[in-house]
Amino acid sequence: MIEESPINSLASDNVSCACPEVMDAVVAANTGISDSYGEDVYSVNLEARLCEIFETEVKIFPVATGTASNALALSAITPSFGKIYCHELSHINTDEYGAPEFFTGGAKLVDMKGENAKITAEALESTIYGQGNVHHAQPAAVSITHACEAGVVYQLDEISAITAVARAHNLNVHMDGARFANAVVSLGVSPAETTWKAGVDVLTLGGTKNGCLAAEVVVFFRPELIGNFPFLHKRSGQLLSKMRFISAQLEAYLTGDVWLRNARYANAMAARLSEGIAALPGIELAYPTQSNEVFVRIPESVVEALRVDGVNVNDEELDGSAVRFVTAWNTEAAEVDRLLRALALHCH
Amino acid sequence: MIEESPINSLASDNVSCACPEVMDAVVAANTGISDSYGEDVYSVNLEARLCEIFETEVKIFPVATGTASNALALSAITPSFGKIYCHELSHINTDEYGAPEFFTGGAKLVDMKGENAKITAEALESTIYGQGNVHHAQPAAVSITHACEAGVVYQLDEISAITAVARAHNLNVHMDGARFANAVVSLGVSPAETTWKAGVDVLTLGGTKNGCLAAEVVVFFRPELIGNFPFLHKRSGQLLSKMRFISAQLEAYLTGDVWLRNARYANAMAARLSEGIAALPGIELAYPTQSNEVFVRIPESVVEALRVDGVNVNDEELDGSAVRFVTAWNTEAAEVDRLLRALALHCH
Amino acid sequence: MIEESPINSLASDNVSCACPEVMDAVVAANTGISDSYGEDVYSVNLEARLCEIFETEVKIFPVATGTASNALALSAITPSFGKIYCHELSHINTDEYGAPEFFTGGAKLVDMKGENAKITAEALESTIYGQGNVHHAQPAAVSITHACEAGVVYQLDEISAITAVARAHNLNVHMDGARFANAVVSLGVSPAETTWKAGVDVLTLGGTKNGCLAAEVVVFFRPELIGNFPFLHKRSGQLLSKMRFISAQLEAYLTGDVWLRNARYANAMAARLSEGIAALPGIELAYPTQSNEVFVRIPESVVEALRVDGVNVNDEELDGSAVRFVTAWNTEAAEVDRLLRALALHCH
Amino acid sequence: MIEESPINSLASDNVSCACPEVMDAVVAANTGISDSYGEDVYSVNLEARLCEIFETEVKIFPVATGTASNALALSAITPSFGKIYCHELSHINTDEYGAPEFFTGGAKLVDMKGENAKITAEALESTIYGQGNVHHAQPAAVSITHACEAGVVYQLDEISAITAVARAHNLNVHMDGARFANAVVSLGVSPAETTWKAGVDVLTLGGTKNGCLAAEVVVFFRPELIGNFPFLHKRSGQLLSKMRFISAQLEAYLTGDVWLRNARYANAMAARLSEGIAALPGIELAYPTQSNEVFVRIPESVVEALRVDGVNVNDEELDGSAVRFVTAWNTEAAEVDRLLRALALHCH
Repeated sequence: MIEESPINSLASDNVSCACPEVMDAVVAANTGISDSYGEDVYSVNLEARLCEIFETEVKIFPVATGTASNALALSAITPSFGKIYCHELSHINTDEYGAPEFFTGGAKLVDMKGENAKITAEALESTIYGQGNVHHAQPAAVSITHACEAGVVYQLDEISAITAVARAHNLNVHMDGARFANAVVSLGVSPAETTWKAGVDVLTLGGTKNGCLAAEVVVFFRPELIGNFPFLHKRSGQLLSKMRFISAQLEAYLTGDVWLRNARYANAMAARLSEGIAALPGIELAYPTQSNEVFVRIPESVVEALRVDGVNVNDEELDGSAVRFVTAWNTEAAEVDRLLRALALHCH
Repeated sequence: MIEESPINSLASDNVSCACPEVMDAVVAANTGISDSYGEDVYSVNLEARLCEIFETEVKIFPVATGTASNALALSAITPSFGKIYCHELSHINTDEYGAPEFFTGGAKLVDMKGENAKITAEALESTIYGQGNVHHAQPAAVSITHACEAGVVYQLDEISAITAVARAHNLNVHMDGARFANAVVSLGVSPAETTWKAGVDVLTLGGTKNGCLAAEVVVFFRPELIGNFPFLHKRSGQLLSKMRFISAQLEAYLTGDVWLRNARYANAMAARLSEGIAALPGIELAYPTQSNEVFVRIPESVVEALRVDGVNVNDEELDGSAVRFVTAWNTEAAEVDRLLRALALHCH
Repeated sequence: MIEESPINSLASDNVSCACPEVMDAVVAANTGISDSYGEDVYSVNLEARLCEIFETEVKIFPVATGTASNALALSAITPSFGKIYCHELSHINTDEYGAPEFFTGGAKLVDMKGENAKITAEALESTIYGQGNVHHAQPAAVSITHACEAGVVYQLDEISAITAVARAHNLNVHMDGARFANAVVSLGVSPAETTWKAGVDVLTLGGTKNGCLAAEVVVFFRPELIGNFPFLHKRSGQLLSKMRFISAQLEAYLTGDVWLRNARYANAMAARLSEGIAALPGIELAYPTQSNEVFVRIPESVVEALRVDGVNVNDEELDGSAVRFVTAWNTEAAEVDRLLRALALHCH
Repeated sequence: MIEESPINSLASDNVSCACPEVMDAVVAANTGISDSYGEDVYSVNLEARLCEIFETEVKIFPVATGTASNALALSAITPSFGKIYCHELSHINTDEYGAPEFFTGGAKLVDMKGENAKITAEALESTIYGQGNVHHAQPAAVSITHACEAGVVYQLDEISAITAVARAHNLNVHMDGARFANAVVSLGVSPAETTWKAGVDVLTLGGTKNGCLAAEVVVFFRPELIGNFPFLHKRSGQLLSKMRFISAQLEAYLTGDVWLRNARYANAMAARLSEGIAALPGIELAYPTQSNEVFVRIPESVVEALRVDGVNVNDEELDGSAVRFVTAWNTEAAEVDRLLRALALHCH
């Protein structure tokens, strides 16, 4: 039995609150009147800020949830009879309850295997078939998650290789960036390099998991893909009348290096946990730790022992064979260390 | 030319900010960790509070927008091949960009005429046909808006008459309550009397227009209608991971009489405007003023003159023949009076 | 009580069998092997024949039912968030069980009133609004039925006026030609004049009601509208593997003047019935008789008396206020005359 | 170079014509008037005949294509957010262009591997997860093809084991019986034994590939699953107005042992081909031959040589690693022998 209070904060990054800059921005935005439906000054400023961050002209659409963000982005680049290639462990395939299929009007997710929850250019190339053949759903898009569901990031050359295959087959490229900030600081490259410069067409950039209340934004790098998106945005109930309250969050989040600072801190806490675990006998990391998620393989008996200790353990994530711990912008080092002590106690 | 600063706040109730109680509640909720996906204590308390308000067991699902709220509620009570009876001026028919059709998978909105943007039991009775006949889309639901799009409220006996017809034809009854608080204080009845006691099955109760940042909630009065709703809720991207921030708004909104106080004030400001207009020669109210919306028939030349004066005039609303002014929880009496002076100047 | 055998054939043109030329063609096609999925020689010949008939390059897609034909054609020219303008009595609005909504992924049918079940250019012009506004479903297409559901045909200038309004608002134009042959012979114009020369973009040309077993064909006059149609065609289960059996029907139907001969005969039988009724006291035609449908206003007591006589009376059609009789390519004059005698007996 | 005329008939069973009994029945049905929309005497008789064949009360819905038949059946037993478990080589997964996704409104096909294109109970058991969890699309149905896409049939105990797993997880069971007759005669069991007695809930029974023009029928063994099917049937454009022409085909097909005779013959021709190939050196069967399909692994150079000889070779089928030859009710033994000679010539 461990001596301390329960360890509840490491089960998910969705359980954390918003960081002060974001909360303050919402309070500050709550004065006076403001244009509605995204024509407010916060949304306008946000777009300008994202153009700056990505060093190119982008078009943006803020939304309230990551599921909506991904499903909407995919519906802009995939017809109702299209195929979306993705990893079998990707969030769009396993955790969005059919939202991509719903928003696209019936597109088919083609799930692929691949080490560390990443797909490869080779696997993509060998999976595509049937273009132009009316008997087969049509190859339309590829979606990669960055940082991916195993907490691993794609290297620039991996992304470029995938998007080259996509381009050769006329597929559009979507990046699920629910943990985009964590990937950017992990790779140590610019946001532009890891997205459009590497061939990504549409990014769903997340704020919720990294210091916002509820704020995500779809970022289009190729304006010709926008098409009917403004209509799809509205039709899905994601065009908030008081959009200023979403955009103000994202504006604060992306001002200065709040977003990168938060991610850097969360990644550091994950590294602390990961390194601590590596030093323990009888416990194994399931994946390399490259962002803010740490997966460990521990026997069911240890999971139960941890729960008895009051640790909130999430063992349903991913492929079921590993337990996930997630750090956030405000995870305390002491909490990480307490978890390490508990693990040391039970794994030997 | 009027002497004062522009009148911008009366074009819509979506341009207003949140009331202090709601904003404070969000700030207060932003501490520590919290369960995600609606299992947080704020959401649990919110459901308890709504049971109290409606004097019965209800099941609730908070969402971020009114469009999602209506479309989701309708998708729970209408099959993909169903017909939804509604007024031709209803928000679901004119202002939600096909969201009801999208969320239901293709249901057909059957729009009806009716004085003051209200449907009648008689009209409903005479419009229903084809039940059980595979050649016709199937009668499935009726939707009424309360307060309705013309700012008029349904009387209790009108609601009961409509729901009796619905019941006789096995239709489910949806109430769009984007301005439910305004209707309740206008009628001077209890929330229960104007909903389930009058035969309403599902209510979409709005907070956004009356003092929240972005918060709506679907309220089920008949648990057997919920069916797959939790899945539809998630699939539509409306199950926020950090749901506490929506629920905390609604909890504060519905605590004490914040919601009724806000509505009472907005209705009073609308009455002030309406009475002022009634006293002006050469200008006519389009509908009786019974909530927080005032519609006036003024010539295009007056609309233009007002715009020159800096008044933000919304003439696209409703049926195009009237100009809409909307008051909110924080509309200043002085602003109303300035608008009256501007109208007096141009209408004679 | 009338003396003769029951009158069953006049309730619908769907109860009739196929004409000899069509039946013979199916039998003839049933030899040897043939390419599948529409690449057979019958389908190729059919397209050539339709190019000839319409005096222009057309692209065609045969299908098995009129409902599929209309819904597929509409899905090619209307986005999922589009509006389709049509008459309130149109088959797509009342008799296809939501198929247009289903095939389009949620488009909204905007039904209009109009004398004799025809819409007018003026009414269309005044009904269109909201283009480019994300709050409103988008104006996308107009659909007219020719001959229309009341058995009346559109005059060339009426069609041109409607399509001019459509063009001015960037709407695509669909013609439901379930009884196209009847319209063509009634008007005495060429197929080209009443379709693409008058501004029609897509025609669903029916064979089933006029001498085929089950054969309809979608005819595109503007190839740029085809887009993804081959995929939609397959996805809806309407691309028959043994398409030769549909195409062979249509090829025989459209060879020489079989289709026009059948329609001319059916129209003549309808005229015989209509003229006979006009001569009867106490009975009134609901619409002018211009094709193969005759609508009469008779009291419910007469309907019942006719049924006692064994006449199969279809009183559910159209607006419920009239009884429909339909003639076909093989209606016997004696059957028409027997119906006239029965009507004479009961209406006085 | 082979001496004879081209071998065209073995690329697919869709290239064959209808057998005499079926063709004669259509001609015979083409007299007089008949009730429409499936209320004709042929449809009524067909249902009675299927009750007899399956030794139980069944409800049936005839349709025009196999794709529609499968997609409609699946839409009756799977919600829009459901998962359908199937083999990765199943026709619904690879060859129906997203029709199942379209008809169900977005269900997700979960494809599984498995020897000889068959899934196993064990694989199914280990693939199911997430029941009741709103983050995951919901396990809803399993679909097996019998005879399957590799030409192999399921043994009775294999079917029972799969349906037992399905039952334990509240999944409904669909059987794609496009080649059901071939499976029945191959197994030598009764139609009842291999369907409902083994736990199958809905069968799509094909006629098109085995002697019909275009005729398939959805057979419900559990009436409580029918639900809204009549409406879905109509909405999809598959309720033919002159349904008698589909039902008459199926009635003739299922009268006496026409269907089994045709299948027995086709299977025998496949066996002849398969045995001939087994005797050839340097050529290998890809799967055991148990119905009317023979898959052989031959190098690309042989495929090209065969094509030079005029053999219509289908090498796009299945997993791309094998060439498919299909026999039909009217395949000539001489054609099989000619193919064997051509193979002998090129494979050594």
